[in-house]
Parts: sequence; structure tokens; C-alpha cells
Amino acid sequence: MVMAQGDDKAFGLEVHRHQPPRIVIIGGGFAGIAAARALRRCGAEIVLIDRRNHHIFQPLLYQVATAILAPSAIAAPIRQLAKKQKNLSVMMAEVTRVDLTSRSLDTMTPVVGGRNIAFDYLVLATGMRPSYFGHDEFAKHAPGLKTLVDAEAIRAKILSAYEAAEATDDENERVRQMTFVLVGAGPTGVELAGSIALMGSIALRSNFRRIDPARTSILLVERGQRILPSYAESLSKKAAERLEKLGVTVMTRTRVEHVDEQGVIVAGKRIESATVLWTAGVAPSPILSTLGVTSDHAGRVCVGPFLEIPDKPGIFVIGDAAAATQGGRPLPGVAQVAIQQGRYVGGFISALINGRPKPRPFWYSDRGNMAVVGRNFAILESGRIRLGGFIAFWIWAFVHLMSLPQMQNRGGVLTQWLWTYLAGQRGARLIAERPMGG
Amino acid sequence: MVMAQGDDKAFGLEVHRHQPPRIVIIGGGFAGIAAARALRRCGAEIVLIDRRNHHIFQPLLYQVATAILAPSAIAAPIRQLAKKQKNLSVMMAEVTRVDLTSRSLDTMTPVVGGRNIAFDYLVLATGMRPSYFGHDEFAKHAPGLKTLVDAEAIRAKILSAYEAAEATDDENERVRQMTFVLVGAGPTGVELAGSIALMGSIALRSNFRRIDPARTSILLVERGQRILPSYAESLSKKAAERLEKLGVTVMTRTRVEHVDEQGVIVAGKRIESATVLWTAGVAPSPILSTLGVTSDHAGRVCVGPFLEIPDKPGIFVIGDAAAATQGGRPLPGVAQVAIQQGRYVGGFISALINGRPKPRPFWYSDRGNMAVVGRNFAILESGRIRLGGFIAFWIWAFVHLMSLPQMQNRGGVLTQWLWTYLAGQRGARLIAERPMGG
Repeated sequence: MVMAQGDDKAFGLEVHRHQPPRIVIIGGGFAGIAAARALRRCGAEIVLIDRRNHHIFQPLLYQVATAILAPSAIAAPIRQLAKKQKNLSVMMAEVTRVDLTSRSLDTMTPVVGGRNIAFDYLVLATGMRPSYFGHDEFAKHAPGLKTLVDAEAIRAKILSAYEAAEATDDENERVRQMTFVLVGAGPTGVELAGSIALMGSIALRSNFRRIDPARTSILLVERGQRILPSYAESLSKKAAERLEKLGVTVMTRTRVEHVDEQGVIVAGKRIESATVLWTAGVAPSPILSTLGVTSDHAGRVCVGPFLEIPDKPGIFVIGDAAAATQGGRPLPGVAQVAIQQGRYVGGFISALINGRPKPRPFWYSDRGNMAVVGRNFAILESGRIRLGGFIAFWIWAFVHLMSLPQMQNRGGVLTQWLWTYLAGQRGARLIAERPMGG
Repeated sequence: MVMAQGDDKAFGLEVHRHQPPRIVIIGGGFAGIAAARALRRCGAEIVLIDRRNHHIFQPLLYQVATAILAPSAIAAPIRQLAKKQKNLSVMMAEVTRVDLTSRSLDTMTPVVGGRNIAFDYLVLATGMRPSYFGHDEFAKHAPGLKTLVDAEAIRAKILSAYEAAEATDDENERVRQMTFVLVGAGPTGVELAGSIALMGSIALRSNFRRIDPARTSILLVERGQRILPSYAESLSKKAAERLEKLGVTVMTRTRVEHVDEQGVIVAGKRIESATVLWTAGVAPSPILSTLGVTSDHAGRVCVGPFLEIPDKPGIFVIGDAAAATQGGRPLPGVAQVAIQQGRYVGGFISALINGRPKPRPFWYSDRGNMAVVGRNFAILESGRIRLGGFIAFWIWAFVHLMSLPQMQNRGGVLTQWLWTYLAGQRGARLIAERPMGG
């Protein structure tokens, strides 16, 4: 790495080689935050860029979408997380271009406008967004769940459907409003389906005069053989049974052929539904496809054993956007992988800068996975342990509560969980006001 | 009142006289909710219409605008508040026209569209919205604070100003971004100013690398003689001193002559400010001006001693939208007046319907007023009691906490207050994501 005299002020000037070296991290999700933290004792200048001002705790996003949690309960200001780390600057900006040859990138910020930032090392932790498998026209009718804005939009869509069902005199329209279709039965689809079912049967009980929210139809459509394919078959079977008990219709080996304003076409049959949610495919941030590097079938960037892009020394991809493999199998897009990769890359760059020996290749240590199905039931898989039921639910609740980024989040989530668990209510049943009349 | 056979299903049919009689309440604020509750044992069919699905606890709205509280902490679903009251239907709709002659109104609902609803009694509890004294062009640059959407927009504006100040290299622009102008020094203006000051000096401390948020300029501009004119002079003086201590510049007898994108013109002098907030005038909902009834200078509808519109028997106006007087003096637009008026009108209509003697005229029992200034300081006035300081602050906190509509709100607000009070942090520092690039 060529070093030259440069500025020592974060994103102040646009020179190209720095002393101390500059590490730019794009994305303040699990991976990006973990990487920044792991660099805290490194003699480098770190710039973390995110288009949002907040980190979100993705595993509970479905509870924001179903009015259990307030958006801020699962969010933490990135600046707040970074405040004690003096070598770290946070920049709220959109990255519009990355140039690996000149080792610089362009950002766009409101008021200030465009800015070019040079880097010595780059960590791409840009996450994933919903993908419609070439049917982008579905997006308008079937929102995905990746950001707080998505979650609030889904929450408004679900609550508004019950309002419309209550208001209408047309029986067919009422059924359409009370029919929810979820496309894709991974953890998000399953957790959403369970939570919507309980909202109808418990939280909204006695709230309406003309409809019975317990009579909501929820269809969970999965084109694969079974729901939750990343879990053991016995657990995915248990989860499916539990969903059926909650009133969810589970349809596996079924393809959603079409989505429009009125509903979906599934296996040649039209299902009228006012609320179709997309919990199927994901694709990386468009910026990654501009890099001219190799990616897998889902668009994730292929990385080597050190999570570096092959032939691009000092350029790393971590988290969901990385196509990393272990023992020939791709690593799943889960928080644990992102966090461990972030820590690893932070340590790796530290070692390079401080002249320590190169660390061993990244190795994901799988502590297990959990998914919750409704109330008092979760599935848990960790090594040879396979749990489905009440105990797994409490482990799930404890682990998630303790993993939240700040005390504030833990307090807020606990308060809101108690309200939901003990009183059967949901604490964030807000439909954001917007101009009406259509 | 002529009674005829009608439908007994809430807002199902459009006939004109009902058995049981139909009472329509427009507005789910303090006044409307109190009126509905007071009618719970009345042999009538009650329809509560609001364009929003939630009631909000207005006195804490400024804490949502300054990122202390999540929007849902001060909101309660109207349906949830109404669920046990079987004679009450809730309708989420916009009222587009009220016809006092035919005793019916038109509503607009998404999906379902327009609907005409007949009533025997009408309670207008439509509240107030910001008024720009004929300068509606200021609205775009100086948002008011009346709804949760307003509060979230102000929150985003304040937080984004610090982001822009951190990002810019232009010293003048940095000062402009760190200058906040509040127009109007009633309780909302004073409480907002104190809260913004503490956000800069405490909550955002160490969060930035290039700016010091403690160096924020906050100007509170009031055209009257003194701030908080509804309080005793000694208290308004104390509050002003406290604000100055927090770093707020209080400018009384000062008129804001112009507001634009760059800032304001105050007493002939331009002040550059990226964040101008309007906490001055209020005006009633436009629907009231279509009624063809007498209103005061601020547009509030003049009502008689029973809160009825003169010569319009069975049509009531309550809450901020009513120009009620007591002993020749207008009643203030505060929550206590709204709640007492709601209860009164509910009881009044009950008496009419059930053939009980007509109650005595409405009499407001003033239990006192409180406003908080920053941290550990509030002013309180109740009868001859005038308190300013620490004790008033704790009374303020306790009374507000206990007045929140649901347990959930109390738990949530308490958690978030502890976070702010003990840790100096703010729990809802979210800038909602939006398309960037300008």
C-alpha cells in the first residue's frame, strides 16, 4: 500500500493515499457495525457510510410490521453506537459510485451534494433488498420487508385492510380485504404469518362491529418442498403444523405466477387479496453490480477465504451481500454470519495495517438458528439440538432481547412484549396519516 | 325530535331519523373521546368519525418532535379505547361535508369511497391546525405541530440539520443548519425550545466529529409582551430566565415578517436558519367554516352556555374548535377544557334522550396548568398556587404519566423518560428514509 501525506480530517479532502490509512465501510447493518467496532484499536481513520441515520435490529423487523414494536424500539442511531470510537466518523450519505481502480467512491448528501472519498481499504456491507425474480412490476402490489419504512408501510397496509373490511358493504370486497397472501416461507414469511394470525384472533378482538378479525385468511405460499428449508425437516414440519393451528393455510410446492392490485394467481387459480407481502427472494444493492466482479446466481459478490474480492486486495464484502462458502456450501444470510464476518474483516485489516501475520481464513461458527411461530412456540436448531415449542420460545425471547444494541431498545422491547404477551394488545397500531379520498 | 323506524346497524343505511337516535361525533381527540365515553350508558347509537385510526396525547407531542418518545408511545388506537362500549362504532373516514339542515354528513373512506350519514345529534370536536395569519406560503418552510406526522417531520428536520452541519465544509451553511427559529412562545414553543436545547447539549454530545451540537442557536420569537401569556407574569419571567440559561435566545415583542427556505426576517433583520418551526397561531378545521355559523376572530365556532350552536339544537362544538366563554372570558384551548366539555356534552345529550331535566350550563373547573422548560424545571399555576422549579417538574411528570390513555403508553413513556433522564439519551432518533440526491 503506497502511503502519502494526506488530510487527517474525515471526509474533508479528496486526496488518495492517507497516513493514517483510511478504511471506508459502506452499510451500518450487523456486518458494518461489527467491522467498525473490530477496528477500534486500529491506527486508521474509519469512515462508516449509511444512507440512514440508524442501525436496525433486523430479526425483529416483522414485529414492527405487525404493530407489536415501535420502529425506534429496534433502531439505534449509528452515531450513538459510534460515539466512543474516536477513530470512526459516521457519514449519512448515499453511495452513488464505487471505483475500485482509483480506490475512491462518490457520495450524495442532502444540502451538501456530491463528494468523492478516497480509501485504502473498502468494506462493502450493503445488505440485500427484495427481489421479484424479474417481475419488478409485482413490487408495487407486494412490498418486501427490509427497512423500517417497509415495516411501517406493511403495518399501514394490514391495519388499513381491516378498516376497509369494516367499512365496506360488499361481501366479496370484505373477504378480499381480510385475505393476506405471503409469498415465500423462509423465517420472515413464517414469523409474519404467525404474527398476523395472532393480531386478528387476539389483538383486534372486539375492536370492530361488523367484522370478526379472527376470520382472517392467511395464505403462506412457498414454491419449495417445505417451509423453513434451512431447518431440519422435523422442525419445519412442526412449524407448519403450528401455523395451521393458528389458521394459516400453508401451500408448499406452489408458485405465485402473478401479482396485481386485486390479488395473486397461484397455480393457475386467482386468489383475491388486498394485502400481498413479498417474503421470497432478495438481491444485493445495485451498487455491487457496477463493480465488474464475479457474483453468484442471486447477485451476491463471490469472495475468497479472507472475504476479499479475488484480485482486489483490500476490498471486502461481508454480510448478506457476500457469497461466501464454507466446506463448499454457501453461508446463509443471517445476522450471526454478518456479525462474525464483520469482526473477522475488522481484525484482518487491523493485522494488515499493524504488520501482524495474516489471520487464518474466515470460519463461521454456527451457534444455531431460531424462528418464532405465533405465541409460545419457536423452533431452535443448534448443532444436534432440535427444539420445537415453549422452551424454544423463551430462549428465543431471551436471546433476542439481550442481543438488542442498546439498553433503551431492551427496555422498550420488553415493555411492548409484556403488553402483547400479557394484555394481548399491540402497542404500535398506527396508520400514518396521508391524504385521503381514493 | 321526530323518531322513525330506521336501521340499527352503524353507518349501514342512509335513513334520516333513527330509533335509537344516532349521535355522530367528529374527532377522536380529548373532547371527542370524552363525549363518547360519557354516552356509554345512553340508549343511543354513537358513531365516532376520525380520519386517523389513533387518538393522540397532545401534551407530549413536542417530545415526539424532539426524539424522546416514539409516536406510538403517545397514541392509542381509537378502536381499542372504544372496544368495550357496545353502543359505539368507530369509523376511519374524512368528513367532506356537513349539512345541518338535512342533518347528515358526507364521508370519504379509502376503498369504499363516499358515504352519507344521517344524525340526530352532532358533536363537532375537530380541533385546530396551524394557522399562518394569511401567509400560507410560510407553511412549507415552517411546519406546525399538531399531528404525529407533523412531529415526525419536525424530528427529521431537526436531526437532518445536524447531519447537514456535520457534512458541509461551508462555515455559513453550518451556522444556518445549527440555527433553529421557533415562531410563537406559547407552551408548545417553550417546551420545544427547551427540548431542542437539551438535545444539542446532552443527547447529541460526542456524536459528531466536526461540529459541537452544544453550540446550537435557538431563537424563540414572540410578538406579545412575554412568553407563556396565559400564565402569571412571575412564572413567565422564570420560564424565560430558565430558557436563557439553556442557551435559548428569547425575543419578545418581535414579529416574524417573512419565512422562506433560507430563514426568516425578524424586525427587519434576516436570520439564516434551516429549521423554522411554527408554534404560533391555530385555526379550526376547514369543515367548520362551511357551516354558516358565527365564529370568533380565530375561526372558532361560537357556542351557547350548553355548548350548542345558537339556533341549531342538537349541534354541539367542543374542544379547541369551540369559542366558549366563561364569565365573559374565552376558555383556553387546553386538554382539560376539551375533556370537561366532552363529558358535559355526553351527559347533556344523555339527559335529552332519556327525558331527564336539562343540565345546568357548562362550567369549566380549572385545575391548573403546567409547562415544562428543559430538565428539572416546570411552571405550575393552579388557583393561587404558583410554582416554578424542580417540584413542579416532578408533578408535571407524574400527572402526565398518569393521564396517558393506556397502560401501554404509561410503560412506554416511563421507559423512554428514564432513558432520557438517566442516560441523557433520546430513544427515537430516526430520520425516516426517503429518496436522496438533492
